[in-house]
Amino acid sequence: MTTPSRRRGRPLKAHASFSQTREDLIRVGMAILTEKGFLAAGLDEILSAVNVPKGSFYHYFESKERFGAVLIERYAAYFAGRIDRFLLNAECSPLERLKEFTRDAERGMARHGFRRGCLVGNLGQEMGALPDGYRRQLSSVFKDWEARTAKCLEGAKDAGEIAVDADCKQLATLFWIGWEGAVLRAKLEQSAKPLRIFADGFFAVVQK
Amino acid sequence: MTTPSRRRGRPLKAHASFSQTREDLIRVGMAILTEKGFLAAGLDEILSAVNVPKGSFYHYFESKERFGAVLIERYAAYFAGRIDRFLLNAECSPLERLKEFTRDAERGMARHGFRRGCLVGNLGQEMGALPDGYRRQLSSVFKDWEARTAKCLEGAKDAGEIAVDADCKQLATLFWIGWEGAVLRAKLEQSAKPLRIFADGFFAVVQK
Repeated sequence: MTTPSRRRGRPLKAHASFSQTREDLIRVGMAILTEKGFLAAGLDEILSAVNVPKGSFYHYFESKERFGAVLIERYAAYFAGRIDRFLLNAECSPLERLKEFTRDAERGMARHGFRRGCLVGNLGQEMGALPDGYRRQLSSVFKDWEARTAKCLEGAKDAGEIAVDADCKQLATLFWIGWEGAVLRAKLEQSAKPLRIFADGFFAVVQK
Repeated sequence: MTTPSRRRGRPLKAHASFSQTREDLIRVGMAILTEKGFLAAGLDEILSAVNVPKGSFYHYFESKERFGAVLIERYAAYFAGRIDRFLLNAECSPLERLKEFTRDAERGMARHGFRRGCLVGNLGQEMGALPDGYRRQLSSVFKDWEARTAKCLEGAKDAGEIAVDADCKQLATLFWIGWEGAVLRAKLEQSAKPLRIFADGFFAVVQK
């Protein structure tokens, strides 16, 4: 990435390296929080994976709390993109898009040996011990995912795939409540089966 | 509790006090793990709540890992009793028993300000950072709860409340997958609504 002029006289290379290192911290932080949650994620582990000396952390983030908030933001944006890749895919029917999203998640969890779950679910579970500001942030992320899912279900309704009187907003909330439970259980059992059982149950409700 | 003879010459009072203190540690430990999980539960917090000096912990439990295993065991036994209180209640129909279990859980979470969730769910979420021996233990607890629930659903089938071809074992698994997700979300949102949404969705599947 180049910029037309150097800001505050900081050398261009150092600037690039600063933002690259910050990105690396975010990337590694997201991976570790997706696996272990916030409480077990040692800052030392993240810093050493990116070769950042311990004392330099506050050069990149003003506080650990802020670092966590950035990780939630980034994961939310990444995951919204992933949801859209499936739910806006015009090549298949709306309900098939949501089904394919669940199948892809199964493949994704298997690829990481069922160690990685959902960063938002992990932090939600840990809320009793996390900064209270995360609560609204995590809750908004679920609302955003639900809105995208409800829109897809509305499409399924228009396409005649689900009942005309289905409450798509409620069904989308049901989906995310149960899906997070399924991800948790898939991690515990180290198996895709809980994801499949929940998805089958959910699609039985919407298609009844 | 009295014993007919003193074992190993330990004074009776001291013996009673030892088991009472051990019970207190288990009781406080369960409450804290139900709220915050294992990782955020400081041993110091538990010990000071019971007035046990830090150095005395290993007098009561051989290790922190063993303490955690005892807490899982105890919670599982307590919760199996709670499930049975509802699911074996001959005063109402089998499906009504399960519905009443979900309503009671709503009331229970509200009573604790939606801070306390499920100890087994909390630890399941944290498995990425917990002793691997807990995995089988937690997984067995879910299997036990599922077996009790499947039995109740079989009763509902016999009573004609659900379809004769319903797969009760699968439905019981679906219940516990989604219910744990609902408890997680109820804690995050500090509201009973996720519990209600999942319960309504689940009963819509079984009664269809």
